[in-house]
Amino acid sequence: MTAKELDGYLTARRREIEAELDRCVTAGGGRPRRLVQAMRYALLGGGKRLRPVLALASGQAVGGAPARKRALRPGCAIEMIHAYSLAHDDLPAMDDDDMRRGRPSLHAKYDEATAILAGDALLTDAFGVAASTGRTVGAESRLAIVREIAASAGARGMVGGQLKDILAEGKKRVSLSAVQDIHRGKTGALLRASVRVGAIAAGAAKADLRRLTTFGEAFGLVFQITDDVLDEVGDLKSLGKPAGGDRAAGKATYPGVLGMDGARAQARRVADVGYRAIEPFGTRGAALHGLLRHVVERAS
Amino acid sequence: MTAKELDGYLTARRREIEAELDRCVTAGGGRPRRLVQAMRYALLGGGKRLRPVLALASGQAVGGAPARKRALRPGCAIEMIHAYSLAHDDLPAMDDDDMRRGRPSLHAKYDEATAILAGDALLTDAFGVAASTGRTVGAESRLAIVREIAASAGARGMVGGQLKDILAEGKKRVSLSAVQDIHRGKTGALLRASVRVGAIAAGAAKADLRRLTTFGEAFGLVFQITDDVLDEVGDLKSLGKPAGGDRAAGKATYPGVLGMDGARAQARRVADVGYRAIEPFGTRGAALHGLLRHVVERAS
Repeated sequence: MTAKELDGYLTARRREIEAELDRCVTAGGGRPRRLVQAMRYALLGGGKRLRPVLALASGQAVGGAPARKRALRPGCAIEMIHAYSLAHDDLPAMDDDDMRRGRPSLHAKYDEATAILAGDALLTDAFGVAASTGRTVGAESRLAIVREIAASAGARGMVGGQLKDILAEGKKRVSLSAVQDIHRGKTGALLRASVRVGAIAAGAAKADLRRLTTFGEAFGLVFQITDDVLDEVGDLKSLGKPAGGDRAAGKATYPGVLGMDGARAQARRVADVGYRAIEPFGTRGAALHGLLRHVVERAS
Repeated sequence: MTAKELDGYLTARRREIEAELDRCVTAGGGRPRRLVQAMRYALLGGGKRLRPVLALASGQAVGGAPARKRALRPGCAIEMIHAYSLAHDDLPAMDDDDMRRGRPSLHAKYDEATAILAGDALLTDAFGVAASTGRTVGAESRLAIVREIAASAGARGMVGGQLKDILAEGKKRVSLSAVQDIHRGKTGALLRASVRVGAIAAGAAKADLRRLTTFGEAFGLVFQITDDVLDEVGDLKSLGKPAGGDRAAGKATYPGVLGMDGARAQARRVADVGYRAIEPFGTRGAALHGLLRHVVERAS
């Protein structure tokens, strides 16, 4: 897949995803208007839609376009979880960020109480969305998707990683394994789950699910390494926030441990593991391959 | 069921529930220690376990003791959601309560960031617990339980009611229908869901699920009316907080609209609807009957 083909693919997938996300928080009514507004502000105000795109591309690797469609609801559930986590992370008691993607963060736009509640609602309703994945996906697979999302987002995954990150702040020396452990929970778990739920929705056989799990883990690690590199060089445009913020806050980063060149080389090595894992899917895996290459290249 | 028999029933059920709740947040490991401590503090520090007891009693009404056991995991999932909601409601940006059940609330004991994250983890992991209800409950029923919990706790249920409650604060006149609407979301939805998930786990037929839904709605309404009455008379011992706090904060209450005697009479009328709904279950419904009577009597 050329860079141009990937662009077209991403544009088409994002359009499907954003239409479905809007339905996820508005369909059927019965929600207070202010809550829906805040949920839509958090969920639909830009963002790369990387997690649901990964879910769709993973479904496609397993079973082509029809399988890709089955991954849409699980992918949207994960994006709702991602959006809630950003809203709660930005709160004054957490990272205290008033800006997100170049505009006021949720609590700055509304107020803290609304931001807490809109986050809680996105998190809760994400499971309603995951559990109402269409009946073309078997009931046991739909349950596996719910469990996968809960495990990756909860105390043993994303929330656990977030707490570890807070506890590590301000420590002077942080080992590479501690950095990896934090990011595996905080960012990696949900990216891995994005790939896995797409595969599960598509009805992947065990061996294929194993291959895609390896890919998802590699993807998560490359994502975090390159995120740290970008934070360091201060790509204000793509991150929408000032440079070096994480390191200045005393947070563990890959460049802080490996240096900039070392971090970039590590990203390429890990990406190779991901590419190899999806070789058996041939051209059906082209979108996954393109997504990973895209993430590697953003830091080069 | 005599008052003494009900006491014995509650003691036995609470013991089962608390053992299972502890397993829900510790089994398998992999969670940061501080997070587990905070989750256990929020989840296991007292409380009447009303919601999981309702789930168990509802399962029992449908199919006796074996069915009651199947309702344990869904009931515990709902208790985890209840515990997260208290932790988030107590936050400075929300109700700003430093005390809960006669001891420091979660953020007062730890800090705000930990309270937000422990709440998020309890909410997320609740769905993992619900989805891993044992295989004696069919996969479609387990999915229905996940959807039931998400719908009752999310934007159209508890979180929506909480936001409406905040928006109504400080208004001088609040109609009875507005009061009912707020409480139906904020408290009623999760109590109704407690009864329904117990019934679904027990494999209730449609007509029985309908009867138990009516009971659950009546229970939720009686609970809220008597909660408001207790708040007004200031039963410091049973609520663990000062008297008249809700009314003083400008919140809509039943006694504020109906007067104290009017609120008590309304609670008895609604309870009668609940008793009638479960008559067809005979002695199997005795625990549900006793629980409702217990709630009515606390305000008389």
